[in-house]
Amino acid sequence: MKRRDFFKNTSILAAGTALAPLTGFAADHEIPVISGKTAKNIIFLVSDGMSIGTLTMANLFIQRRDGRSSHWLSLYEQQKAVRSLMDTASANALVTDSAAASSAWGGGVRVNNGSINVGADGTLHKPILQKFKAAGKSVGCVTTVPITHATPAGFCVNSGGRDDQEGIALQYLDLRFDVMMGGGTEFFSADKRQDKKDLFESFKAGGFSVLRNRQEMLSKSAADSKPVLGVFHEDGLPYTLDRNNDSAKAAAVPTLAEMTDTAIKLMEKNKKGFVLQVEGGRVDWGAHANDTGGLIYDQVAFDEAVGVAIAFAEKNKDTLIILTTDHGNANPGLFSAGGDVNANFDKIKSFKHTNDWILNGITSNHTPKQVIERIEAAQGLVFKQEEAASLLTHYQTMDGTGLYNPKKLPFKLLAEMQVKHTSVSWGSMGHSGDYVELAMYGPGSEMLKPMVKNTDLHQLMLRAAGLGA
Amino acid sequence: MKRRDFFKNTSILAAGTALAPLTGFAADHEIPVISGKTAKNIIFLVSDGMSIGTLTMANLFIQRRDGRSSHWLSLYEQQKAVRSLMDTASANALVTDSAAASSAWGGGVRVNNGSINVGADGTLHKPILQKFKAAGKSVGCVTTVPITHATPAGFCVNSGGRDDQEGIALQYLDLRFDVMMGGGTEFFSADKRQDKKDLFESFKAGGFSVLRNRQEMLSKSAADSKPVLGVFHEDGLPYTLDRNNDSAKAAAVPTLAEMTDTAIKLMEKNKKGFVLQVEGGRVDWGAHANDTGGLIYDQVAFDEAVGVAIAFAEKNKDTLIILTTDHGNANPGLFSAGGDVNANFDKIKSFKHTNDWILNGITSNHTPKQVIERIEAAQGLVFKQEEAASLLTHYQTMDGTGLYNPKKLPFKLLAEMQVKHTSVSWGSMGHSGDYVELAMYGPGSEMLKPMVKNTDLHQLMLRAAGLGA
Ligand SMILES: [Zn+2]
Ligand SMILES: [Zn+2]
Repeated sequence: MKRRDFFKNTSILAAGTALAPLTGFAADHEIPVISGKTAKNIIFLVSDGMSIGTLTMANLFIQRRDGRSSHWLSLYEQQKAVRSLMDTASANALVTDSAAASSAWGGGVRVNNGSINVGADGTLHKPILQKFKAAGKSVGCVTTVPITHATPAGFCVNSGGRDDQEGIALQYLDLRFDVMMGGGTEFFSADKRQDKKDLFESFKAGGFSVLRNRQEMLSKSAADSKPVLGVFHEDGLPYTLDRNNDSAKAAAVPTLAEMTDTAIKLMEKNKKGFVLQVEGGRVDWGAHANDTGGLIYDQVAFDEAVGVAIAFAEKNKDTLIILTTDHGNANPGLFSAGGDVNANFDKIKSFKHTNDWILNGITSNHTPKQVIERIEAAQGLVFKQEEAASLLTHYQTMDGTGLYNPKKLPFKLLAEMQVKHTSVSWGSMGHSGDYVELAMYGPGSEMLKPMVKNTDLHQLMLRAAGLGA
Repeated sequence: MKRRDFFKNTSILAAGTALAPLTGFAADHEIPVISGKTAKNIIFLVSDGMSIGTLTMANLFIQRRDGRSSHWLSLYEQQKAVRSLMDTASANALVTDSAAASSAWGGGVRVNNGSINVGADGTLHKPILQKFKAAGKSVGCVTTVPITHATPAGFCVNSGGRDDQEGIALQYLDLRFDVMMGGGTEFFSADKRQDKKDLFESFKAGGFSVLRNRQEMLSKSAADSKPVLGVFHEDGLPYTLDRNNDSAKAAAVPTLAEMTDTAIKLMEKNKKGFVLQVEGGRVDWGAHANDTGGLIYDQVAFDEAVGVAIAFAEKNKDTLIILTTDHGNANPGLFSAGGDVNANFDKIKSFKHTNDWILNGITSNHTPKQVIERIEAAQGLVFKQEEAASLLTHYQTMDGTGLYNPKKLPFKLLAEMQVKHTSVSWGSMGHSGDYVELAMYGPGSEMLKPMVKNTDLHQLMLRAAGLGA
């Protein structure tokens, strides 16, 4: 029986129900190794929701601030990478969500938006980290959003609905992957979970090292072979810009580059190698919120993780690096519309806080003058009285809880008011169907074709590692 | 004396003044041929102002309408093309205009926005078609905007200001290039030119074939070796969507693919080869106007020209094809924001007319009901009474001449109202600084690096043709 046929005969029992990890798949490690140089290790880095304008602006930002190119584009300049254009559609839409997108890579089959490796007919597609784990490799994910979020989950589990993050957390307990780190405290803590289970205790009882802050992560010994669960914040980790300008947050929360470095150090000792997914998840959130500071500084932080991965691959030539995104988001760009676009763009170098920080700190009791002062303190931009008043009207119609609901905050209005200051503008607050950037470096990259579907990466990764289909 | 030094010692006398073509440059044909396979012919196809979303949406449109991929992306699927990411900045801005962008390719040096192959200090950079002409090749440009517009001009002339299209027309007379075709009647006709010269008569007197409509173009014999000036419309040619649904326009105005085919047929007989620039110029205008029908159908028409070029190169292996854009524009995308994005996108297949056609046909005497009927007839979209009324308010504040000034028409408002119908949204009405798509096929493409500056293409074209620097 071919594996595909096996999958077809396996149905998910109830969509949205937490599933125990599936067993009984064809043994992947029995599949013969494809000839040629194989990738012992794979580091798959995904900047979630990265339109080409995001990659561009981060590179321009780094060039103008640091006098060098981004790690990602330096690979191109040094002619080390193989590039491709990737079609990101899902089974039911030209514009994917992160669940279907990660499933395309993780399970090799397009599913409907919202699903994680579960077809519309209930067919289950085995997640790639389960395959690599079965082949003896160490596997893991690090992210700046909840570790139970769609992009890591698509490499790890089957779930009828991405929203079942509590169920996904339970699956992680049984999967016993080697390193899982990010945000999402609320999906593990007894006081937030619907089932009132203390998953942190369950993970400890199950033999995991449970890490809850940056210092614990940095202190974790590479000699200790316990699997690692690192959960450093409720919901997503703070935006890089806000973290870096808040000493308490900077002390408590690791950067994506630090998590990447830690994950590599913990897994590289495996003689059969490792497979790691690294997600810059808040790039997507910054795009959804049209938050220029959030977006650019988090894309730069993602690029630092890219730098860590490339440095490892330079020393370990049996490592395949994959750089991509799951879909475009908001299609931001630096736009010419009068004003000095270069000088405007350079203002972003002086930003201290995101729009998220600005708007979450405003209440209906604020005066326009206080709003103006807050924006100037955060970003050095001088707003007008009537602009501040216009932002404040959104707070008068909110109830008390709305303050904590980003969807009610005037992100769009603030972004529109900033265009004349920064020359950065946005096409939407949602995902786009744009074909996206994809690049590879290392063994296996020679298989990459100039135009691919997201699903093609599944087989490519398996074949690169010597596990054919 | 090196050529560069010669350039440095040559200053433009007066910015904006029409210049006679420069002579006395180092003889390019004396430069030794670089070893290896050389490109006898080069066809440089530029979709002006094509963000990646434009390339994507045109491909999705062709796939869903015709059941095949675009010619451009078919090259990728067939693994025939070499791709690169191109940095499009100008000398003075991260976001270029078309004059500086075409100068980067045409003259090999970044100049300030608005200039055509003239540096800020007055330095002149010799346009590449002059170099190729001097080397004995046939040369030409075809475009859907005025043939005197920035993108063709950047391959042909030096001019302190792109707005001097009358002066550029005069330079074309002296340059005697083999095929120059597009729009821009007003820059050649005695009743529109400031100097009252009848340039059509001057071109005829100078030995040109002057073609004024599609039939004249199609009847031009390839055996006739006179240089060709083809000017088929005032200003730009009609948008493809409007042309194809107007039999008079379709009879009078050739498509970009037809112009491309004609240009190749007229120039391919030269044993030393030819160099042709093909511009989809109205793609840029469609982006500036956030005109979804204008943009997508003109990008599809551009792709038909790409198909003509590729078909020629398939048969003539000594032909280098270059596919690119000069800069992003408006960063449109197909966006997920509720609604059925696939069904919404498919509505564009039934469009009969552009937003340009809709808005230019409305007057302040229209009723909301008439506006609703006009939009539904043009695009099958049913607007609400209050939306139509809102559009009409823009006409009440216009004077009579405003009707013919696109900048006063409510393009932005109409595009915003269409988002819920088509799921296509826009980030701006101006150029973007996004790195852009670049691909090559044929001899010389092996020299293309994964990341380039726009200026790199100048030397690449010369070297591909065996003319080093
Ligand atoms: Zn998203
Ligand atoms: Zn333009």
